[in-house]
Amino acid sequence: MISKNNGFQVNCMEKYLITGFSGFVSKHFLDFLEQNEVASAVLGIDLNKPEFDLSKYKKVNGSFQHVDLLNKEDVDRVIQQFQPDYILHLASYSSVAFSWQNPVASFTNNTNIFLNLIERVRALGIKCRILSVGSSEEYGNVSPSDLPLREDHLLNPVSPYAVARVAQELLSKVFVAGYGSDIVLTRSFNHIGPGQKDIFVIASFAKKLIDIKQKKVASNELATGDLAIVRDFVDVRDVVRAYYLLLKKGKQGEIYNICSGKGTSLAEVLEKMAKIIGVEIDHRLDKRFVRPDDIRVVVGSNDKIRKDVGWKNEIELDKSLRDILDYYTISST
Amino acid sequence: MISKNNGFQVNCMEKYLITGFSGFVSKHFLDFLEQNEVASAVLGIDLNKPEFDLSKYKKVNGSFQHVDLLNKEDVDRVIQQFQPDYILHLASYSSVAFSWQNPVASFTNNTNIFLNLIERVRALGIKCRILSVGSSEEYGNVSPSDLPLREDHLLNPVSPYAVARVAQELLSKVFVAGYGSDIVLTRSFNHIGPGQKDIFVIASFAKKLIDIKQKKVASNELATGDLAIVRDFVDVRDVVRAYYLLLKKGKQGEIYNICSGKGTSLAEVLEKMAKIIGVEIDHRLDKRFVRPDDIRVVVGSNDKIRKDVGWKNEIELDKSLRDILDYYTISST
Repeated sequence: MISKNNGFQVNCMEKYLITGFSGFVSKHFLDFLEQNEVASAVLGIDLNKPEFDLSKYKKVNGSFQHVDLLNKEDVDRVIQQFQPDYILHLASYSSVAFSWQNPVASFTNNTNIFLNLIERVRALGIKCRILSVGSSEEYGNVSPSDLPLREDHLLNPVSPYAVARVAQELLSKVFVAGYGSDIVLTRSFNHIGPGQKDIFVIASFAKKLIDIKQKKVASNELATGDLAIVRDFVDVRDVVRAYYLLLKKGKQGEIYNICSGKGTSLAEVLEKMAKIIGVEIDHRLDKRFVRPDDIRVVVGSNDKIRKDVGWKNEIELDKSLRDILDYYTISST
Repeated sequence: MISKNNGFQVNCMEKYLITGFSGFVSKHFLDFLEQNEVASAVLGIDLNKPEFDLSKYKKVNGSFQHVDLLNKEDVDRVIQQFQPDYILHLASYSSVAFSWQNPVASFTNNTNIFLNLIERVRALGIKCRILSVGSSEEYGNVSPSDLPLREDHLLNPVSPYAVARVAQELLSKVFVAGYGSDIVLTRSFNHIGPGQKDIFVIASFAKKLIDIKQKKVASNELATGDLAIVRDFVDVRDVVRAYYLLLKKGKQGEIYNICSGKGTSLAEVLEKMAKIIGVEIDHRLDKRFVRPDDIRVVVGSNDKIRKDVGWKNEIELDKSLRDILDYYTISST
């Protein structure tokens, strides 16, 4: 492929624009490109500078720009200058709890930023493929007989965040059908892995367990929400491989679940982690962590992504949990 | 009811905040209140001043303020000062064609303005009922076996406008379930009537027919889009009565079709109108008016609104068409 960048020509260099660059998923995507020796130019954009070091990559020529996706001129400038082959749209306010506290900010920073991006790509005639990252939250409350969830299952979003993701998906479909935009869509299930912020449940468990292990807290008591909740956990390193494969081989306008196909309760996860680091814990239900409308059980089917692009998850939950605990052990010492 | 306005107390005065006040629906709503002697205070808000005369109403104490619904401070000021009992949210960029040209503006001026409004009502703790006006466009392309469309039919929005309306509806449901917001929802079918802008098809036919009748144009030729398209037309005066009844008696969180239950092709409408004013026309298909993805047949069921609030449409299509032709005859002379 010949780069379309006017300043110089780079043969066989793939150009990725990554939004939400400072988040933990984009770092893992760069690691994937590096490990698989994908010669690539990456322009990362975000409101916040990433904490990871771009200079460590040899195969990935990475750079960062401060860009507000709600600002049309900013978006125009970036995509016209960079002329991406692929846009990996990771920017999102992805917390359900935050969306209940700030429904307008959640909606704007999910749906509106995405719409701005796909519209500017369309209006400027940029030829590139866009990955629209959605969420298993879109399915809402489902009954056991619906499991595992397939992509054609009815959507029933029950939080402002989930509505924002459904709207993003519906806009994508209209852009594909009406304008021919090249968008591939995901519904990504709970991804976990080293580097995730501890506002998410597994990372928060890991951090608390390390604190107990290192005796930074007085007791072994751990306050949790409802541990009976079951989720389909998938390692972020599997997720970024799925994103890469979907950008390369996913079908235009199609939606793909990214999931393991297995359900694990939060109680099981907590037990596994406590065992790995060898601590005994007393857990206690704290009602502040219980959301009355939280979805009980979410397990997806990954048949479609297996069939269309040959992806399957390879990292077992135990390994993910060990790596997360290692990450928090290192970062807390 | 005692007015909550602190400055003075008004017995039995209902307070309506109407957004999108300068449109033709709000004028008909005011006419309805006046004719039914509903003693009411109406605050109309819009970006544009309405053209109709508020001083002609005796029962309706109407006023207008210039408000941008995207401006949080503006919205806060208005709803805190006025303390509405009811919000009739008519503000919308309701053209499907416009939404294809300007998907961002369409989405922002449908979904985002609505979200801002319901969020500010929630955040400020204003006790009022809100009518969320949706559209039959939300159903998308349906097959003849799906007709008449009931409210539980799957939604399949196929334009940016339709996506914006679906997102509005999903946000409403989440606000009702999650915060207890008092929102009643409609899916309004094609409303027609005197005063509608001629960017809409029936009004544009009427205007062109009057021009032919009054010999303002050289030939009897009339360029149209695809006349085989079938729609469920409902008179705006029936629509505003439905809005009033839903504000009074609709069930919180429920969605109601507002439609006649009858389908009429554009060819039939054109024929009826030509006959009413006594002109012969040559119509000619102009491909510029044909949208490739236009929905073929839309007919709704009004069983639910009949059952829950006792509404049914009362104005026959022939009367609507005569009144529209009268309106354009008067306004063109």
